[in-house]
Amino acid sequence: MKYSAINFAEKFSKFNEHWSPRVVAEMNDYQFKLVKIQGDFVWHDHSDTDEVFVVIEGELDIEFRDGKVTLGAGEMYVIPKGIEHKPFAKNECKMMLIEPRGVVNTGDVSSDLTAQNDVWV
Amino acid sequence: MKYSAINFAEKFSKFNEHWSPRVVAEMNDYQFKLVKIQGDFVWHDHSDTDEVFVVIEGELDIEFRDGKVTLGAGEMYVIPKGIEHKPFAKNECKMMLIEPRGVVNTGDVSSDLTAQNDVWV
Repeated sequence: MKYSAINFAEKFSKFNEHWSPRVVAEMNDYQFKLVKIQGDFVWHDHSDTDEVFVVIEGELDIEFRDGKVTLGAGEMYVIPKGIEHKPFAKNECKMMLIEPRGVVNTGDVSSDLTAQNDVWV
Repeated sequence: MKYSAINFAEKFSKFNEHWSPRVVAEMNDYQFKLVKIQGDFVWHDHSDTDEVFVVIEGELDIEFRDGKVTLGAGEMYVIPKGIEHKPFAKNECKMMLIEPRGVVNTGDVSSDLTAQNDVWV
């Protein structure tokens, strides 16, 4: 079929790793990535770009050095470039990241949680 | 509160016009817009940019000159730049558009459905 919808639930069914974003689409030089997360991520920032988090299922805390925001399903947040943040999810959370192609999940920080980039599902 | 989630349902409760996108966030030079649609839109394209449609509630058809795709809640589609398309929703559909700041809803086509740009909610 020439034209096919990108279905988030179907894409999420194809992987289970946490903190391992999978690209589902590109718009110009931006990528849409789905990711399952649970527990604590690492403090990091992206010095060159804003980054969008959209929660699809579950609950996500984004901690900042001076506060935090909690997102549920149907909520989004734009993390401004250069702002240190640490995602946290008590229970598994399914979310979408939107950011320029080439952005690494841990920014300039190297960590066991640094994921391979540009992996499609 | 310094950090606040952007809640789609709360934003949708603030307007009822169809085909009138409201900006809810910016990421670099891109905008996230919520829009309620019903019925037929006009054939148009965006010669300079891809455009993303994400359905939040309801069902959206995107017709192309040689086919169509139907999106339900939790589905998205990237319309490539320069490709003529015509959105259609039999019943009211709530969706999110993601595209560069400055993109007009009817592209290069002037229509009664051409909406004022850069209106925030």
